[in-house]
Parts: sequence; C-alpha cells; structure tokens
Amino acid sequence: MTNDDLTYPGGGVRLYVEAALSDGFTVVLNEDQSHYLAHVMRAKVGSRLAIFNGRDGEWDATVVVVAKRGVTLTVGRRIGAQTETPDIWLALAPIKKTPLDYVVQKAAELGVRRLQPVITRRTIVERVNVERMRSNAIEAAEQSGRRTVPDVEEPVALTRLLSNWDTTRLLLFCDEGGDAKPIAAIRAPKAAILTGPEGGFDPAEREMLRAQSFVIPVTLGPRILRADTAALAALAIWQSTCGDWT
Amino acid sequence: MTNDDLTYPGGGVRLYVEAALSDGFTVVLNEDQSHYLAHVMRAKVGSRLAIFNGRDGEWDATVVVVAKRGVTLTVGRRIGAQTETPDIWLALAPIKKTPLDYVVQKAAELGVRRLQPVITRRTIVERVNVERMRSNAIEAAEQSGRRTVPDVEEPVALTRLLSNWDTTRLLLFCDEGGDAKPIAAIRAPKAAILTGPEGGFDPAEREMLRAQSFVIPVTLGPRILRADTAALAALAIWQSTCGDWT
Repeated sequence: MTNDDLTYPGGGVRLYVEAALSDGFTVVLNEDQSHYLAHVMRAKVGSRLAIFNGRDGEWDATVVVVAKRGVTLTVGRRIGAQTETPDIWLALAPIKKTPLDYVVQKAAELGVRRLQPVITRRTIVERVNVERMRSNAIEAAEQSGRRTVPDVEEPVALTRLLSNWDTTRLLLFCDEGGDAKPIAAIRAPKAAILTGPEGGFDPAEREMLRAQSFVIPVTLGPRILRADTAALAALAIWQSTCGDWT
Repeated sequence: MTNDDLTYPGGGVRLYVEAALSDGFTVVLNEDQSHYLAHVMRAKVGSRLAIFNGRDGEWDATVVVVAKRGVTLTVGRRIGAQTETPDIWLALAPIKKTPLDYVVQKAAELGVRRLQPVITRRTIVERVNVERMRSNAIEAAEQSGRRTVPDVEEPVALTRLLSNWDTTRLLLFCDEGGDAKPIAAIRAPKAAILTGPEGGFDPAEREMLRAQSFVIPVTLGPRILRADTAALAALAIWQSTCGDWT
C-alpha cells in the first residue's frame, strides 16, 4: 500500500522539524523520521504531510526525494498559525522507565510547556534519560495536534531548583500533608506542578518546600496516588481550572 | 531480610481478601497472595499486615501458618471503618494491552467504583481480558489505600449498554465535537465517563450517543488525547468537581 496524501488528520502524518518553515523552503528529515516516512508509512515522491517547528505555525509539505540519505520535503502553504500551550510546567523526580515514558507522553498530550527533571534525596539518578524524554515528548506532541513540543530540561537538584526559582511562578507541590489545599481551588495561570519519586520526598525536603513563599502544597484526594498518576491528575485539573480547557 | 511488621503503611503490605472479617476469624490466602507474602515479602509466623474485603472495613492480621498450601492469617483488631468511593464509573472501549493495564490501575487509584468494558464498532474484541483487568484493579486498590476494589463488569455492546442504562446516572461522553461542554462545568454526583477505542467512535455511534437524554458530550480541551489519557483526565477532573477531592 502507498499513500499519496499523508496530511494530518486524514492520513495521520504530522512531524516536528527543527528547520525554519516558509513557502518553498526545503526540509531534509532526520534518519528516524525518514525511515518512518519511507518504510512505515510508505511515502513516495508526491506524498503530502503536515509539519511544524514550534515557531512558524503548521505547514503542508510534499515529499520530493526519497533516498538512502533521507527524505526531503518541499514546504507548501501554511495550514495554521503558531499557537502556544498554557504556561504550565511539570517538575518531576524521575521514576521507573515505563511510568516515566508514560508520564512524559501524557504530559505532552495534556499541553505541558516544560518538563524539568528534579533530583531529590530518594531519586535513583541513573533513571534520567533526557534524550529519551525528548523523543517521547516530540512523538506525543505530533500526535496530539499541538504546534509546540515541550522543552525537556537537564536534571537539576531540588535545592538548586528552589534557589534559582522565578518567584512569580507558583510551584504546586503535590503533598500528602493534611493542610494542603485541593488543587482545583488554586488559581495560578503561571505555574509548575512538582511530583516526587516513588518513595516520596523526605521530611527535610517537605519542610524546605513548605518554607518557600512560591510553594503551595496541594492535595489530590484521600487515596494514595503513584507519582505518575499524581502528575497527570494535577495537569488535567490545572488545565480545566487555569488552562485552555475552560 | 525478614519483616515482622508488614502493617500498612509502615511495611507497606495491604491485601484484599474475599473472606468475611471479624476479630479472631481465620483467613487462608490464595496462591498468588501466599507466594507474594512468603517469598517476596519474606513474611513468617507472627508477621503483621493489613487486610480489607470491601465490606467489613480494614483489619490488622497476623500470619499464623506459612505452608506450601498457603499462608493463613488470624484477624486482629479493626483499623478503620468501611468507606466507599464516590459514585463514578468508567465505561471504556478496550484498547491495547499496556495502555489498558495502565488505565485500569490509574482508574482504581483515582477512586473509580466500576469499570465497564464496552464493545464498539471499532473495538478489537480479542483485547478484553476481564480477569487481568480485575487483578490490576485489586493491586492498585491495595496500594492506593482504598477499602473497596472497583467492580470489573463483563463486556457489553454499546447499543445494549445504552438500552439498559439507568437514566438517573449521567453518561459523560468524551467527544471531539465542537459543541461539547468542558467537563469541569458538569455537576453530576452520580455519573459514568465513556471513552472510545483508539480509532474513536464511528459517526453512527456518536449520533446514537448524542440522542440519549442521559448523555452529556464533554470536551477535554483543544488537543487530541489518546483514549487512556482522556479517561484519566476526565476521572481526575470529576473527582475535583463532584467527588471526594473537593
């Protein structure tokens, strides 16, 4: 089977590229994308798809070369203007590989703008694979229809994260503490959600977090949630109260 | 390493059992639980843990026999009264194995009361493994601290689900349609969330759903969510507006 029109959402192909995009520009896809397009989607010269780069909006593109060295596209007309997701970050202590893959994918779908790995006392540091996080975030962005990809930052220690924090951004700390507010009660249009590793934050970390003026401890109900569940629940509720789901 | 006190949350062991629970009763664990307790947690005679059955509250229990045929417990004092989760169901078209495992686990953590597999036109029926869903739901219930486990029903066709529906329960249909309301705007203390298979509902199904008096089409924002993401986001938002996260 070949497929002439891979335009999203009809044919479903939508790719993130780094190159500048404008009418008539040429884009050479990287190895993975070329393989995907040529061998998985069976694209051929003349096949069409959608591309975006997070800066110039979304564009129609046409395959002009399918070669061993890669697939080359010519940019056609602009399908849509550049848009931005709401101003929400997820600062997360890395967890096991599969739940981490999952939380990155879901956070990208839920419109997170930045993913910040945070090293805590109970974090198993070997788990942080930033390139893998980036690749998962890009794939989910492509499939979700968003015109940006989340930034995935290099890991930072919790103490350093707090000392360098822009205090105009509220940090919603998903805590088990009794006095924490329901997250739906918070109105914070510029915010970050913070979740811990499987073993949670240690008592000294909780105390340090609660001492910061920009930290708001928030609760996610009476049951014990895994770290990845907490991150996704918090993002969904934030989108529905402060983001673009209202 | 052995562990005398496996009481949750100290040692972390908390098991769901089917037997009736009262002071002095004897409980014989099934094969899987016996293996877990004896060989993974290294329980021995005298080890303590927490048990619940969804009816009689939560109880302290002590291992009295560790044998090849299984582990036997004696029920001690009641740790806490029986509690119920809010009245929310998830009706979901089965999806691929790994995302289905994941959504069952997360839905149980998020306090869902019933999981109802729904067969739609685009559902791949071979995917419905009710026993696996039950086992995942029980494990997540044990770890989340809830004192019930979600009911996992036998699969039912969408048409039949609708014709037998208790119309006092609102069915929140996660739809991509333009006129759907934000889910956070709905107040429905007795409700069910409905999500489709990877390929979505077909046009005739969407029309049929929208024709029902008890169906409310709801939206989850401007991005395209996978079926499992939609289910979890909808559950989290419902808990924060109508459930026990308020």
